[in-house]
This record gives sequence, structure tokens and C-alpha cells, in this order.
Amino acid sequence: MYLDQEIAEQPVVLQRLLSEESATARQIAAAIRDFDPAFICIAARGTSDNAARYAQYLFGAQARLPVALATPSLHTLYQMPPNLARALVIGISQSGRGEDIGQVLADAREQGALTVGITNDAQSPIAQTAAYHLPLLAGPELSVAATKTYTAQLAAIAMLVTALVDDDELRAALARLPGYVAQTLTEHIASPLAGPLWVERYRYMDAFATIGRGYNYATAFEINLKIKELCYIAGESYSEADFRHGPIAVIDRGFPVIVIAPAGKTLPALLDLLGQLHDKGAELLVISNEEATFAHAQHAMRLPADMPEWLTPIAAVVHGQVFAMRLALVKGHEVDRPRGLTKVTVTR
Amino acid sequence: MYLDQEIAEQPVVLQRLLSEESATARQIAAAIRDFDPAFICIAARGTSDNAARYAQYLFGAQARLPVALATPSLHTLYQMPPNLARALVIGISQSGRGEDIGQVLADAREQGALTVGITNDAQSPIAQTAAYHLPLLAGPELSVAATKTYTAQLAAIAMLVTALVDDDELRAALARLPGYVAQTLTEHIASPLAGPLWVERYRYMDAFATIGRGYNYATAFEINLKIKELCYIAGESYSEADFRHGPIAVIDRGFPVIVIAPAGKTLPALLDLLGQLHDKGAELLVISNEEATFAHAQHAMRLPADMPEWLTPIAAVVHGQVFAMRLALVKGHEVDRPRGLTKVTVTR
Repeated sequence: MYLDQEIAEQPVVLQRLLSEESATARQIAAAIRDFDPAFICIAARGTSDNAARYAQYLFGAQARLPVALATPSLHTLYQMPPNLARALVIGISQSGRGEDIGQVLADAREQGALTVGITNDAQSPIAQTAAYHLPLLAGPELSVAATKTYTAQLAAIAMLVTALVDDDELRAALARLPGYVAQTLTEHIASPLAGPLWVERYRYMDAFATIGRGYNYATAFEINLKIKELCYIAGESYSEADFRHGPIAVIDRGFPVIVIAPAGKTLPALLDLLGQLHDKGAELLVISNEEATFAHAQHAMRLPADMPEWLTPIAAVVHGQVFAMRLALVKGHEVDRPRGLTKVTVTR
Repeated sequence: MYLDQEIAEQPVVLQRLLSEESATARQIAAAIRDFDPAFICIAARGTSDNAARYAQYLFGAQARLPVALATPSLHTLYQMPPNLARALVIGISQSGRGEDIGQVLADAREQGALTVGITNDAQSPIAQTAAYHLPLLAGPELSVAATKTYTAQLAAIAMLVTALVDDDELRAALARLPGYVAQTLTEHIASPLAGPLWVERYRYMDAFATIGRGYNYATAFEINLKIKELCYIAGESYSEADFRHGPIAVIDRGFPVIVIAPAGKTLPALLDLLGQLHDKGAELLVISNEEATFAHAQHAMRLPADMPEWLTPIAAVVHGQVFAMRLALVKGHEVDRPRGLTKVTVTR
């Protein structure tokens, strides 16, 4: 099995990325300052699209840059691309081979936008099309479900934002990232099939929801995608706020909900939601570094206590990766090659 | 029951909006041309957020304006709002009372952005905060699930884009909109409890997916939300492209999928996906005006043959509204007041 190795490798991958590509990030940040974009547009699909969701909050909050997610079909199927001339356009793709993402970058570059690719293959078309490239250096990812390339994508975004804001506190926190992720993994240090298999409780789970807000809106989506890909269970992901606008109606006694609720600005809203979900009898799995969130949790997944909120998505998702992998094993699925999926999906 | 009346009322609501507010739309379009925004940022929640998804494609394709969806929590919880000074910022809210949407508009106006509110209440805080207001004139919506205000929101966006592009063909098509929606409703003309109750087949459906692409990406989300709100069934919505990146793994024999596949630019990709879903044994419900899409469909929901693709979301969603309402009735639910929901959701 490759998946457990790739999950375990993440602190090393993050350390390598920080050590070897910080200069590249600073160079791209300088180009961004020169260009002075009115906004950022990010083109991505699947797991990379969840990295884009993280970028939306991190660039917005720390660099005050609004982020739009691209509409690739306007570039490909409709051939009516919006005008991105005043934008920084970032293409995120593990393989660097998504044709539609490449088309968005090509159109944007022609329109005069500043273009950046974030991929795990410096020779890929997307890396070549963009004016700048930030390589993930994650090494080959052999399991179909993306894990180490996802956390590397988030770290790459955090590196760009940190270089752009040029703030000592952000820089110091980012340097601690590999340690935070390693600490998160220690909760799962035993081999996936050893130890108390608490995930067996979810063997027949047939629906679920994941909820986050702000920085961890992305985490809700990514954990959801991992469970879906590896366990073939239909689940939904929401921002805490959107969830109250309708979807909360589906919550019934025993409905499993994974809530990402780290200490920070989103905590009061998430604590309130956790109370409501408990009142409805939901089964709660909580990822947090704040003990109060575990009050009604069936299962607590802990994050490092001193981790700043903006970095928590890079550790929180690791709990979801391990949960999805273990549940897939409990269900007897082939974890490295889930049914119906291929590593590189070419969409137009 | 109000819901069936509000669904049936939609052609009249659309006609009134087109007749009475086209001048307002032209006035706002003139202000947009003067301002020359680098991009659009739309703040919305729940059903209104699905209207924003439609706006993303329509403004992008027809007016070449890129659209970002706002991140309200950066304005409220984090109090680190991105800089929207070079944006047209549109707040969409049925009630006009979403506090977080109001905060995005207030911040944007202070930063120097051009602000527009689209609401069903001219006296509401959002209508008052924005520099311009486009009223929906949909009349009171008494059922908790939004129907006529959603189609009115889409029509309001179509009116703004048509006024901005100032094209005779778009204008002529828009004038036919109430007729298209009336024609779509005729398929469901019998009272919801009369006639062959084909929805009974789905009485015990416990999961589902909705898929669209481009203009109808919004429709996939909105039909999904209606089924979730009214029938309490967890379902997921996807763009055809994202669906291939992972979620397709959950499709198994008998899994119900609602596909919106009108004639137009997205048709070849959707026909290909329909074939794949059929091969996997999925149960297909198809909304289209192209007979080829019905080849493997368990149930066909027809759209007017000559309706241009960009307007189809306003008719396609009606099929989903009726399906969700009928299924809720078959399940014995209280359709006007679904459990756990209130008409106005205040999120911060």
C-alpha cells in the first residue's frame, strides 16, 4: 500500500518544500507586487480546487486580495473567456496536465494577466504555460487519492502569502508547519490495521456531512472528497453558515457529521452549531485544538494546541486522510486504486 | 399549501419583473459601464448563492466580466475584508436581511466599490446599504423553500447582463422568458396529487446526486437544495467536470442522478457522462430539450425546444422544484414549513 506511506511522508515533503522553494515564492511575490492585481483568479479541479478554497481565505485575510475561482468551461466549451487582464491567475494541478486549467492560464497570459502554476511536475504543460512556476517537490504520488500533494499545495499557497505579506510572525509560524503536521500524525502512529479500530463503528455509515468555516471550509471539502473517493460513501460538505440555510434539515438522530472547529475566529459560530447538532442527535466527529468542542463528540481528533488558525487546514486534513484510509480498509476496499478513478483526469 | 401556488406563479412574477424593472436594470448597467470594474464580487447565501453561481457564468460569458463569490466570514468573523475597491459588488438576498451579506456591501461601499443589491424587499437593510437596488417584485413568499424569488433572482441577473451587453438577440430571448417558464410548467399542470405519480418510485430514495455544467451548474445546486430542504434526503451537486474528479466513485447500480443537459455548448460533455453513468447502472432523471439525452433516462423532464442555453436555468429549475415538492408530499412531509428551517436565516 502506498497511501499510508504517502500520508506519513507529509512532514518530510513540507520541510523540503519550505527549505528549497522559499526563494521561488519570494520571487513570485515580488512579481505580484509589481503587477498590483485587482484580484486573483484560481483555476483548479478536484483536490486542487480545495486548495483553491484555502487560497481564497488566506489571500483574502492576510494579503487583502479577493479571490475568484475560475470557470474553465467558459474558456473551453463556451470559448467565451472572461477578461482576466487585471488579475493574478494561478493554476493548481498535481499532474500539471489538466487541459482546461492549462487553457485558462493560456487565455489569461494572452490577455495580459500575471500567471503562476503550482504543480508537482516542472516539465508539465501547466508549469510551462504559466509565467512563473512553484514546484511542489512532493515526489511521485502513486496512490490515486491525493494526500501529500494536497498538503504541499496548501503549503505552497501559505508560502506565497507569507512572502507577499512579508511578516515575521507568519514566517515563524510557517517554519513550524512540518512539526505541527508530524505531531498530528503521532495520534495515528500505529500501523493502520493495528490498535483500537474506532473507525469500525462507521463500517455501515451510508451518508455523512463535513462542516468547516473560513480557512477550514477547504478542509471540509477535502475530507469529504477523500471519504467519497476511498469509501464510496456519498457525503456533503458545507460552510457552517451555508449549512444553516437549508441543508441542516437533513440532520436526523445518528447522522454522522465531521466538524473542523479549531481555536480562532470561527470557534464561537462552530461551538454554537455543535450544540445544535448535538440537540438533533447527530453523531459528531470533531477536529480541533480546543477542548470545549469535544464536549458532545463521539470521537475527538486533536490538533497541536499552539497552531495558528490559518495553518490548521494543513494538519486538520491529515485526520480526515487517515480516517478515510482506515474506513476503506475496514470496508475491504482497494485503497490505492479506488474504483472508477484514474490518477490524471483530463476534463475540457 | 403555498408552495404549489408560488411555483405556478413564476411566469407572472417574471413578466412583472421584466415589464416594471427593465429601466432600473438599464440604469444600473450604465453605472457599471462608467465604473469599469476589473471584476464582480457577489455575496449571497443558500438559494441566493445558487443565483450567484448563475451570474458567474452569465456575466463571464456574455459581458466578459470575471465573477468572484464573496467570503463573508472575512468581513464578519475575521474582520479582515479583502480589498474590493476595483469591483462591482452585488448582494443577493430574498429577504434583504442577511447580516453578513449586508456587511460585505457596507465594507465594499466604504472601500469605493460600486454596490448593487438584488432583494425582494426595497425597505430591507441590504436594499438600503447598496448604492443601487434591483427589486424582484415577487410578492410575499410564504413557503420556506424559495422558488419564485430564485427564478426572479436569475431573471434579474439576466436583465442586468442584457442591459450591459445591449444586444438585440439577448433582449428578444429574454422577452420570451415568461412564456418558456409557462410552457415548462404545463408538463406539471395537473394538481400535484393528481395524475400518474411517477415520483412514488423515489419514495425510499436515500441519496442522490445532481449534475450540471456551465450555466446549469447553478441549477444542479438549486435542485439539490430543494430536495434536501423539502425531502430531508442528503444529496450532492457537481459540475460535470468536477464529478469525474473523484465523486464518480460513489455511483453504483441504482444510484439516482439528476442531470441537467440542455442543447448547447455543454451537451457533448454531458452526453458522454450520461453514457458513463448508464454503464455504471445509475438511475437517470434528465432535464433537457435534446431528445438524445433521454436515451437512457428513467424519467425525462422537457424544456422548450427553442430556448437558448443561457436562459435554460430559469426553466430547468422548475422541474426540480416540482419534483422536490411532489416527493415531499409522497413522503408525507409538511412542504411549506420543512423541519429545522426558518424563512430568514441570519448568519454572521
